[in-house]
Amino acid sequence: MKVSQLFSKTQKKDPKAEASLNAKLLMKAGFIDKLGAGIYTYLPLGLKVIQKIENIAKEELEKINAIEVLMPGLHPKKNWEKTGRWGIQEMFKIGNYGLGWTHEEIITPLAKKFLNSEKDFPKYIYQIQTKYRNEKRAKSGILRGREFIMKDLYSFHLNEEDLNNYYKEVQKAYFKIFERCGLKEHTYLTLADGGAFSEEYSHEFQTITNAGEDTIFICKHCHLALNKEVKQKECPNCKNTLFQEKKAIEVANIFKLKDKYSKPFNFKINDQYILMGCYGLGISRLLGAIVEVFNDENGIIFPTEVAPFDIYLIDIDKKKEALSFYVALKNKGYDVLYDDRDKTPGEKFKDADLLGIPLRVVISEKTLKQDSVEVKKREESISKLIKKVDFKIKSC
Amino acid sequence: MKVSQLFSKTQKKDPKAEASLNAKLLMKAGFIDKLGAGIYTYLPLGLKVIQKIENIAKEELEKINAIEVLMPGLHPKKNWEKTGRWGIQEMFKIGNYGLGWTHEEIITPLAKKFLNSEKDFPKYIYQIQTKYRNEKRAKSGILRGREFIMKDLYSFHLNEEDLNNYYKEVQKAYFKIFERCGLKEHTYLTLADGGAFSEEYSHEFQTITNAGEDTIFICKHCHLALNKEVKQKECPNCKNTLFQEKKAIEVANIFKLKDKYSKPFNFKINDQYILMGCYGLGISRLLGAIVEVFNDENGIIFPTEVAPFDIYLIDIDKKKEALSFYVALKNKGYDVLYDDRDKTPGEKFKDADLLGIPLRVVISEKTLKQDSVEVKKREESISKLIKKVDFKIKSC
Repeated sequence: MKVSQLFSKTQKKDPKAEASLNAKLLMKAGFIDKLGAGIYTYLPLGLKVIQKIENIAKEELEKINAIEVLMPGLHPKKNWEKTGRWGIQEMFKIGNYGLGWTHEEIITPLAKKFLNSEKDFPKYIYQIQTKYRNEKRAKSGILRGREFIMKDLYSFHLNEEDLNNYYKEVQKAYFKIFERCGLKEHTYLTLADGGAFSEEYSHEFQTITNAGEDTIFICKHCHLALNKEVKQKECPNCKNTLFQEKKAIEVANIFKLKDKYSKPFNFKINDQYILMGCYGLGISRLLGAIVEVFNDENGIIFPTEVAPFDIYLIDIDKKKEALSFYVALKNKGYDVLYDDRDKTPGEKFKDADLLGIPLRVVISEKTLKQDSVEVKKREESISKLIKKVDFKIKSC
Repeated sequence: MKVSQLFSKTQKKDPKAEASLNAKLLMKAGFIDKLGAGIYTYLPLGLKVIQKIENIAKEELEKINAIEVLMPGLHPKKNWEKTGRWGIQEMFKIGNYGLGWTHEEIITPLAKKFLNSEKDFPKYIYQIQTKYRNEKRAKSGILRGREFIMKDLYSFHLNEEDLNNYYKEVQKAYFKIFERCGLKEHTYLTLADGGAFSEEYSHEFQTITNAGEDTIFICKHCHLALNKEVKQKECPNCKNTLFQEKKAIEVANIFKLKDKYSKPFNFKINDQYILMGCYGLGISRLLGAIVEVFNDENGIIFPTEVAPFDIYLIDIDKKKEALSFYVALKNKGYDVLYDDRDKTPGEKFKDADLLGIPLRVVISEKTLKQDSVEVKKREESISKLIKKVDFKIKSC
């Protein structure tokens, strides 16, 4: 794609009235636009990253046999009265509808319709969907939106062993997702209170950044983390007592719901309530977390697999070779953003850094004299010349 | 995929409390589930079709240089007050938010932020998004939902000629979309009142079916259609006076908004208001229209490109060769639904018809004696034997 085709533009100054680093950087680089507190439009660049994260999540969930559906955003009051959660203040309400911020009240009666004999179990159902939550405090950019994109997975089991096994499988799948998003080294499995969902521990996946609203305590020995609510003297896993305190963002959470929702909906087989697990993953929040973790004073630094493009191609001296090199790169299967604008090299370099695309490639009279292009990785400061014919991302 | 992995199940009886044919068939076949009036869950099979329609729309829109964004569903009251449309009853309202049923009030000020010099024009921005509309009468299944999936495209131009040219390009792209959805022969470009949007004609794309809520009049000579509001004695295109009256579903509509929205948002360049076009396409409604058009007494008959699977594979006599043939078909790149359930052949045949997958392939002791499989197209009644090794969809 050419930069001139993009709808968005970069901004020279930090956006006003935006306290969070993630929204500041994403707005400045033209990835998102703010419509109101906690409400953002995903511009072409931002949506591209969101779709990449979504595809990673889909691929990893399908590997553990989850199947995709799409449930409504408008929820009937009667479903939520059944579980006693209609009163929750953060739920937007319109007469006898509530706007979905989670979907236990919808998936449970739905699953009950279709799963009616032993051989129908286990089943794993997920969706990627826009959710709504009336956050009083929506000051963290896309980390805590009133409208946000979630992946939510629900599992249905006949016995606890089966639930426990799948719960562990999801943990592995989630770490694979974080790995592909570049966040694995920064993200900790964190013990948390079962809270309103369950009586035993649940788990959060917490990504370390200074912007984090949460505080976690990482066991220096086994790396299990504990959140504030369940912090105790010794690590429940390895019994060590040394912890490191860190600010973190909760990018996912998983719960063994057990019969918490199958009971009110009377969902049982052979007189036994169905056991459920639920597994949330914040898609738009992951974009925010990636930006909070990977940035420098010049802008965002996207991990390869979630970058909106592979290459930012800059044309200096208006060389006709730039366009043909752009076409050649596309033919090689690279996803290229070609800066064809009538701007100074300095402005283009600045935007290349701001957008955070992993590789910058410059083509100019000087590089062409050596049949070369100049390449620079976003996170490095040194550039080098590579022969045009030899160009491969891997050799940069 | 194996039928046993599917979350949904077919129903033997017509669903209760559902008047529309599209919802009846889709619910019976396990494509959708009804949560409330005009509110449906897309089950795995239904979501697969929805995603195929979405991809077709994306591909055809990107060919005419449209670029994708994702705007919020929560809209601030102040945007809608600016255009005088806050009062519209069908808009769901939550305090100072309305739920988006169209996005002129969001895209116009957004475009104004980024398009600020002549060289930024024209631009074409689209999204695929869940919309909400408080329909008093939600009795047409997914043809008229309170929650529905729309593709909406907005174009921005400096002059009328440019708007008119793009308006025609979108018409062509839409016919290409309908062609790929199997609906081209059934869908008419229809003159309509500009209505609340514009003072001149707008156009609808109307798909002929008995379930249609609209009535159109098709010129027998030039095939332009007129809707009820603009019906006149002679065809405004060819001046002929013979029309055929038909019931139809409005699957898309396009408007030259001109300066209707750029004015209230004071969006201008060089003292000239920007001219806009808007182009809606009902994604979930298209699924409904496809089902209304393509069905028989046994169920749905999906056009090839929007079918949830290419092949419905039935295993009779529990032959181990069925599984290996399933794997072979997948390796050939076919999308196969393999009925591995413990059901009678009759039940499997019935479900194959109900689901409407274009090709049914049966493998049994009898067919294997001739190293063959039995193939039958959904819309035909005669089956034939094809040698396993020669199997190709194209030769069926």
